Amino acid sequence: MKCISCQDLYDEDAAGTCKECYEEANETEEELKREIDELKAKVAFLNARSHPASFSDVVLVASEDTSAGAPVAVPAHKAVLVSRSPVFRAMLENEMEESLSGTIKIGDVSYDALRTFVNYLYTAEVCLDEDMACDLLILAEKYQVQHLKDYCEKFLVSKLNWDNSVMNYTFAHQHNAKHIIDAALTLITDNMDKLTTREEYVELVEKDPRLVVEIYEAYLSKQVNTAAQKDSSRKT
Amino acid sequence: MKCISCQDLYDEDAAGTCKECYEEANETEEELKREIDELKAKVAFLNARSHPASFSDVVLVASEDTSAGAPVAVPAHKAVLVSRSPVFRAMLENEMEESLSGTIKIGDVSYDALRTFVNYLYTAEVCLDEDMACDLLILAEKYQVQHLKDYCEKFLVSKLNWDNSVMNYTFAHQHNAKHIIDAALTLITDNMDKLTTREEYVELVEKDPRLVVEIYEAYLSKQVNTAAQKDSSRKT
Repeated sequence: MKCISCQDLYDEDAAGTCKECYEEANETEEELKREIDELKAKVAFLNARSHPASFSDVVLVASEDTSAGAPVAVPAHKAVLVSRSPVFRAMLENEMEESLSGTIKIGDVSYDALRTFVNYLYTAEVCLDEDMACDLLILAEKYQVQHLKDYCEKFLVSKLNWDNSVMNYTFAHQHNAKHIIDAALTLITDNMDKLTTREEYVELVEKDPRLVVEIYEAYLSKQVNTAAQKDSSRKT
Repeated sequence: MKCISCQDLYDEDAAGTCKECYEEANETEEELKREIDELKAKVAFLNARSHPASFSDVVLVASEDTSAGAPVAVPAHKAVLVSRSPVFRAMLENEMEESLSGTIKIGDVSYDALRTFVNYLYTAEVCLDEDMACDLLILAEKYQVQHLKDYCEKFLVSKLNWDNSVMNYTFAHQHNAKHIIDAALTLITDNMDKLTTREEYVELVEKDPRLVVEIYEAYLSKQVNTAAQKDSSRKT
């Protein structure tokens, strides 16, 4: 028979679907693509922000930016900040210092990261590298911007490898990044034989031994599970 | 053979795809669904507007709302209005009366339609019926909110039928709604034998005969096309 889709000939044992199901699947795909186009247009409509500074009523300042000169302020709108972050909401709606002065100081962050963070609040768009993903994850955690935190976690999980696993594991613990913790633990416990010789491991035992205990507990639980699986498969 | 998808048996002449293409199509569908979920989360993030009035710096008033009492103002933010509508941008950025007073008067509109319009600017969400779609199309045309105009046109095209076709055709011409004009013309020219007896037709000849001419021109061009097609199919 000849496949309607790839046009190759195939035998009966390589047969897939009937024509009807093929056509249905095709229609479904078209529908999904239309839905994607509509959603993309919606996102484009909602994140329009051609004049970021116009009618700005608040500025954010990277208070500990150590680059040359005075810190540059990032203009924004209180209405946008409160709708994206419960922390900004509490800060601005309760007439705290920041609301009255119209200036929000953000500690421990570079101007670049702050500007990128604010831009994300308006557009839900960002171009990440690993450093920026870490900086933004910290800000997203601090200001409870869950959508951005999820995005950074997903990106960092995709960049996980044996070399950066312990570092990322430690970082993720500091900033409550559950997805990264889980992915890093899986990677680390798959390579336990190489773990104890690593410099980061030795440092971690020194600085935060509870995190090392968690690694060993995960490893142990994995071994117990594997043994139980082997056992049950032997019995059947 | 048995279809992998619907599990029904089928003959060779009802065969669709090979197994490989079926699996690929399945993966594509999963990917598209994931993309849809991500886009939906993005839309939800961007349209968060739990406190519409907070830090509002402008109000919109339905200046000719004839419902009881003084017109109710709809609070909004200049930054949002200018990012969604080039008309609001020109109005607010050029320090015209509206910008200085912080009040934008919108003529010929009900409070309900105005509130729905403003809400759409923030959320890109709206629940339409035919009346609301007409009201919003007028506002979207006036303030050049193309995304909303497209949406209303699509909705009204989906509601087109012989009974409302002439009325919609006239309305669409008044508000420059190309998609509705095209769809209504197709419907009307398919039913030319019934057209001239209609009350709306008689009224339109009276009020705006150029629009009637356009109907006849479309009908004529359709007849010429049909004749040409018949002619070419006879020759082959």
